[in-house]
Amino acid sequence: MTTTTNRQITLANRPVGLPTDDDLKLVESPIPEPGEGEALVRTIYLSLDPYMRGMMDDAESYEAPIGLGEVIVGGTVGEVVASKSSAIDVGDVVGAYSGWQDYAVFPGDHLRKLDPTLAPLTTALGVHGMPGLTAYHGLLEVGRPKAGETVFVSAASGAVGATVGQIAKIKGCRVAGCAGSDDKVAYCLDDCGYDACFNYKTSGDIADAMRAACPDGIDVYFENVGGVIGRTAFDQLNLHGRVAVCGTISSYNATDQEMVPDELWKFIVKRARMEGLLVTDFADKHAAALAEMAGWIRDGRLTYRETIVDGLENAPSAFVGLFSGDNFGKLIVRVADEPA
Amino acid sequence: MTTTTNRQITLANRPVGLPTDDDLKLVESPIPEPGEGEALVRTIYLSLDPYMRGMMDDAESYEAPIGLGEVIVGGTVGEVVASKSSAIDVGDVVGAYSGWQDYAVFPGDHLRKLDPTLAPLTTALGVHGMPGLTAYHGLLEVGRPKAGETVFVSAASGAVGATVGQIAKIKGCRVAGCAGSDDKVAYCLDDCGYDACFNYKTSGDIADAMRAACPDGIDVYFENVGGVIGRTAFDQLNLHGRVAVCGTISSYNATDQEMVPDELWKFIVKRARMEGLLVTDFADKHAAALAEMAGWIRDGRLTYRETIVDGLENAPSAFVGLFSGDNFGKLIVRVADEPA
Repeated sequence: MTTTTNRQITLANRPVGLPTDDDLKLVESPIPEPGEGEALVRTIYLSLDPYMRGMMDDAESYEAPIGLGEVIVGGTVGEVVASKSSAIDVGDVVGAYSGWQDYAVFPGDHLRKLDPTLAPLTTALGVHGMPGLTAYHGLLEVGRPKAGETVFVSAASGAVGATVGQIAKIKGCRVAGCAGSDDKVAYCLDDCGYDACFNYKTSGDIADAMRAACPDGIDVYFENVGGVIGRTAFDQLNLHGRVAVCGTISSYNATDQEMVPDELWKFIVKRARMEGLLVTDFADKHAAALAEMAGWIRDGRLTYRETIVDGLENAPSAFVGLFSGDNFGKLIVRVADEPA
Repeated sequence: MTTTTNRQITLANRPVGLPTDDDLKLVESPIPEPGEGEALVRTIYLSLDPYMRGMMDDAESYEAPIGLGEVIVGGTVGEVVASKSSAIDVGDVVGAYSGWQDYAVFPGDHLRKLDPTLAPLTTALGVHGMPGLTAYHGLLEVGRPKAGETVFVSAASGAVGATVGQIAKIKGCRVAGCAGSDDKVAYCLDDCGYDACFNYKTSGDIADAMRAACPDGIDVYFENVGGVIGRTAFDQLNLHGRVAVCGTISSYNATDQEMVPDELWKFIVKRARMEGLLVTDFADKHAAALAEMAGWIRDGRLTYRETIVDGLENAPSAFVGLFSGDNFGKLIVRVADEPA
């Protein structure tokens, strides 16, 4: 703890398509001082998630856009290194929302204390954090699958998707999905218990592959990608099928808006329900969900994969890799070592 | 009752675009004889509805397509002129699904007896029949408006739309809509109690007109038309807004599938819910709904408009007129006079 500078990755320009080195710039500033009731947190792990791309645009979204020159936002796990808050002590390990930087100051009572002996700290950013909760609430509250129904998951091995698939299995569903490499497909089938999974990059006709994976049609489609996979899944939806729209990663870097067939009438034919979801809407149910998921993780019923990249300076290139699926499971940057 | 022929309008060819005289052909056949347990019904009124267009195509829909040479389907009010059923007597006036013909035979227990002294018989095909029930269940079960919310209705003066608007007012909502003539707009404002309504054919920019009609945005959009009006309403949906997809009449005669911008990501931004509805899904709640609506009609809180066309032979041209909005309110064909 001899350094006195805070490295920050900031939004220098609004990206057109994939962010470049000119868009996401590393700058240095003094380490901030906590005020009364506040604590200074040193980032250990930074979560990289597709939603961050939307916040780099100056467009209507569920959060205000990141301003030019501001630090890129993001969930973190960190260590409290100074505290003027009675709620939190130096040495506490906490979940925070520090963003892409080494240090940040928070009101002490905004920090969630983590127990490092309970589970690996990284799980607080993945299966037992925001992506896991997104999967849990999105599947159960929006998708509302019944035992015996078929759930189809795109980005099936991802931080959200793999959790959706496993919770759907726990709930007695038939689960199928697609992913972008044979390794990921094997993980879904062997580790996550998917009944069927295909590699959409090599499967040939996606409609045929999806029909083979879901011979009884799709009752719940958990949408992570959009594009042709999303439209094909909608087409194969059963009567009273549901689409939980969690993400549409295929469109996040699109510079031209894609045109798709107008299929509104199919909502009537299928009595389909399509609904967007955001995990923060379910905040009052997070504690109960985390408790239930902790049990599943302990019992081995809920497994996870992570890709950990070392060094804050590598966050931009790792982030860009998200959109081509370079990561396997939850993508995390190790900004500093865990406390000994 | 001296005639012995049954005039029937049949599907001679599958229409391409709007049906023509070559597609919908009048033929004559002998009047059918009721078997044991059956009754012969003479059609008095025939309902013409946009959904019939979809059933003329050989495409997946919520009902099997009408076969070539078969009678066009449709809801009717008729008089029982012969009965071998203990459930129904000659002279009874009934709701049936005879289709576009003078006579049809039904099992006696499939017929719904109507009381001609209670309400005009035509209401059994409109405000107090299938379109009214579609409005009732679609708004309340799918749209789920809360008092104080804004409900926007397209085809606002139509058989379904005008009922949606009035029920939304009864439930304490702000109600706005659009329609295709100044007369229809005046009816919505003056008779149905809409808070705002505009003529989409003359209003200029539809987004501006809709914004002026819904200054607080749209919480529930009741979709009857699709196309640009539907997409504009989706764009103006508030957080947690709902779209009840009842019909997409703008597309029913389209010969090329329209391409629209892919806006799936907006479901997440808005946490929007879009859901298709079909009135038959709510059959177990029809009786309760009809009872409640009868009270509203009696109290003058639920009014209706009808366009009645004389003569079965005029059904095809009247049906085609549905798609340009020639009718005002519920479109009905008087096939025969009411019993004296």
